[in-house]
Amino acid sequence: MDPKTFMDIATVVTKLKMYPYFDIAHYVLMCCSVREDMPQVTGPLAFSRKHPLSCWFSCMLICFAGSFIANLLLGEPCLTPFKDHKSLITATVVWYLIFYSPFDIVYKIVKFLPFKIVLAMLKETQRAHKVYHGVIHTAKLYPNAYVIIVMIGTIKGAGSGMMKNVDRLVRGIWVPTTNELLQPTFYTKASAVASLVFLLERQGLISVPHPLVYFGVVIFFIYFKLSSIILGIHDPFGPFENLFCAIFMGGIWDAMRRAVTKEPKKEEESKDMRNDVIKSKEDKKRD
Amino acid sequence: MDPKTFMDIATVVTKLKMYPYFDIAHYVLMCCSVREDMPQVTGPLAFSRKHPLSCWFSCMLICFAGSFIANLLLGEPCLTPFKDHKSLITATVVWYLIFYSPFDIVYKIVKFLPFKIVLAMLKETQRAHKVYHGVIHTAKLYPNAYVIIVMIGTIKGAGSGMMKNVDRLVRGIWVPTTNELLQPTFYTKASAVASLVFLLERQGLISVPHPLVYFGVVIFFIYFKLSSIILGIHDPFGPFENLFCAIFMGGIWDAMRRAVTKEPKKEEESKDMRNDVIKSKEDKKRD
Amino acid sequence: MDPKTFMDIATVVTKLKMYPYFDIAHYVLMCCSVREDMPQVTGPLAFSRKHPLSCWFSCMLICFAGSFIANLLLGEPCLTPFKDHKSLITATVVWYLIFYSPFDIVYKIVKFLPFKIVLAMLKETQRAHKVYHGVIHTAKLYPNAYVIIVMIGTIKGAGSGMMKNVDRLVRGIWVPTTNELLQPTFYTKASAVASLVFLLERQGLISVPHPLVYFGVVIFFIYFKLSSIILGIHDPFGPFENLFCAIFMGGIWDAMRRAVTKEPKKEEESKDMRNDVIKSKEDKKRD
Repeated sequence: MDPKTFMDIATVVTKLKMYPYFDIAHYVLMCCSVREDMPQVTGPLAFSRKHPLSCWFSCMLICFAGSFIANLLLGEPCLTPFKDHKSLITATVVWYLIFYSPFDIVYKIVKFLPFKIVLAMLKETQRAHKVYHGVIHTAKLYPNAYVIIVMIGTIKGAGSGMMKNVDRLVRGIWVPTTNELLQPTFYTKASAVASLVFLLERQGLISVPHPLVYFGVVIFFIYFKLSSIILGIHDPFGPFENLFCAIFMGGIWDAMRRAVTKEPKKEEESKDMRNDVIKSKEDKKRD
Repeated sequence: MDPKTFMDIATVVTKLKMYPYFDIAHYVLMCCSVREDMPQVTGPLAFSRKHPLSCWFSCMLICFAGSFIANLLLGEPCLTPFKDHKSLITATVVWYLIFYSPFDIVYKIVKFLPFKIVLAMLKETQRAHKVYHGVIHTAKLYPNAYVIIVMIGTIKGAGSGMMKNVDRLVRGIWVPTTNELLQPTFYTKASAVASLVFLLERQGLISVPHPLVYFGVVIFFIYFKLSSIILGIHDPFGPFENLFCAIFMGGIWDAMRRAVTKEPKKEEESKDMRNDVIKSKEDKKRD
Repeated sequence: MDPKTFMDIATVVTKLKMYPYFDIAHYVLMCCSVREDMPQVTGPLAFSRKHPLSCWFSCMLICFAGSFIANLLLGEPCLTPFKDHKSLITATVVWYLIFYSPFDIVYKIVKFLPFKIVLAMLKETQRAHKVYHGVIHTAKLYPNAYVIIVMIGTIKGAGSGMMKNVDRLVRGIWVPTTNELLQPTFYTKASAVASLVFLLERQGLISVPHPLVYFGVVIFFIYFKLSSIILGIHDPFGPFENLFCAIFMGGIWDAMRRAVTKEPKKEEESKDMRNDVIKSKEDKKRD
């Protein structure tokens, strides 16, 4: 591709307005994820009929999860997402259509593969936008607090995963055995990487024009989302993590200790552990 | 009644000072509700003897629930209710008398019907006062954020219900299957309606003198509280809600779908749902 | 001892810099407490291998628990402890060494009695420092809010106990039946007493030079920590509390009521209660 055309596309992507299309895609996917997290025995629709208020609040909590958590952690008013009536009404309309449309037609359309792919692409573009603005906003508040900047960027990009436990509680479900820190999804890890990239760029350590960096992150998000939908690859970071853990997180020393002490029991344990890691990977759900 | 006398009464009610009588009634009812929420097998008194600190903190949390939650959501210091020593000491004295009075006499008096009615009336007047000041305070902070204004008004008026899960946790009890959003009590709904009325008044959409609006809300609260105590009507909003849900929350479409698809299983489910609604209504507790 | 020498020592103690030695001792003990709180069946090391992120976050949460909770309650940004990179990196290095050192050597050294005693002494000095600065900081923000001042002082000194439930949740464990308010540890009570002493001093009610007051609190903390490690006395406040409860928290009235009503069942209950108190005391863990 012509570098100039590429640069022009990147500049356009950088300046895209999120409202309405990108935000709507985000709300649609978030409401679907809430719907799919409801008990499947009685059906998510039964719940939405019995408890519309809880259902609505649960969806809003997930739609604006990043802002809620980031505001709470930064000591700003949590409720600010509710100040923006335009977004709130859009999200409410989306929620209504996903749960209460006649013959469940909206949900069925949304789940149709081509639409699903378009929505995913819009949503990933919006994620890059949110991570970028989270990093910029936090960097203004705390210029040198790199850890906080990366954290807030990650939360803005993948807040819905962190909100999941609270969100379930709103719906009367409590699953304490899992959370985003125990089993981080790919989206959390990718948002963390993107935050780091934006931070490095801001610190002047990446000598590439800003639109290219931004566009690169967008492509990175979309690429892995599509490979997750189409090819079923849920965690491309997995192998690197396993390698890192094997080297730095005690793997080598444990192997050495086992070799020295020759405990047959330990072998089994490590096998268990491996199975568990594989299982937990299978359990990971899409954001 | 003479309109002028009525107006005079309304003006007096508007300017009532909450401390001490109205606040004390509130603290008494809140401490009683905490006491009645304790495990009845070993007796609430056994718990208060074993864990006085947890018992005290639990009561304070419920007595000042509205302020705690509203402050947290608005990004203000949560602990501000503890700044007001006068209220805190009053609430502590009330807590002490409810739990540790000789021969449990204070609790028995408070539960005697005439006293109960007087306390309920005082408490409902205080609720109207709290909702009004919640609305006014929030409207100053966020002049056009109508959703936030109504939310804070509701929380100020019926915060104890929302705090219930946290409050139980302080006492070592965890009941995640229920919360105020899943099964809102009448008090939450009434506080939301009152917040809306005060908001509309502030926006100039209600052309009635302020004392009348305020007095109307007070009478509305007291009327339904008394009908709850004396007649046992716990949720006058119920029929309207059921109608609304039947029309807008999928009821019509579900019926149409059942008619089209003729699934006998669905019938049973809807019956289950109805029973569940009736049951959940019976479960609702007084605030 | 010569009073002048004593005064000189006290002055030196008052002006001690916490970083690095005292802070490191604190981090070491906190990471050890997290490690010992992990399920002992599969081994804490198995967890740290499988979930390093959750393990790290859990340790950081406990290391900076006082700041997190105090900031949240005072409406300040929760994340401020993460602004201080020096402390964060130190804590991370300590965490790494405790969990991933070759042949678990660091943990074994730390648990060796002489080292344990030195670490405990350093940690208790740091506790006094944190309580003092918590009291001073809060007294500047809310000059007359004595309850808030004592609360924040206590939280700064013994925040890890209050964070325990959240910390366990991060590790996928949920134990709602116990918390710091239900069964306060000695450290919480001691921190509350120390906060009160510092508050009284600030109000000019203690006419002793500041270094002596501060040194007195340090000695008080160290003395009871050592008596806990060496003699196994976990709660020297216990007898006073039991006396206080017997007099003011209904004990006398309950006894009188039993004498009047002559219910044999009540006797058993009170025996149960006593056993329960003894048991709960045995359950209390070291901070």
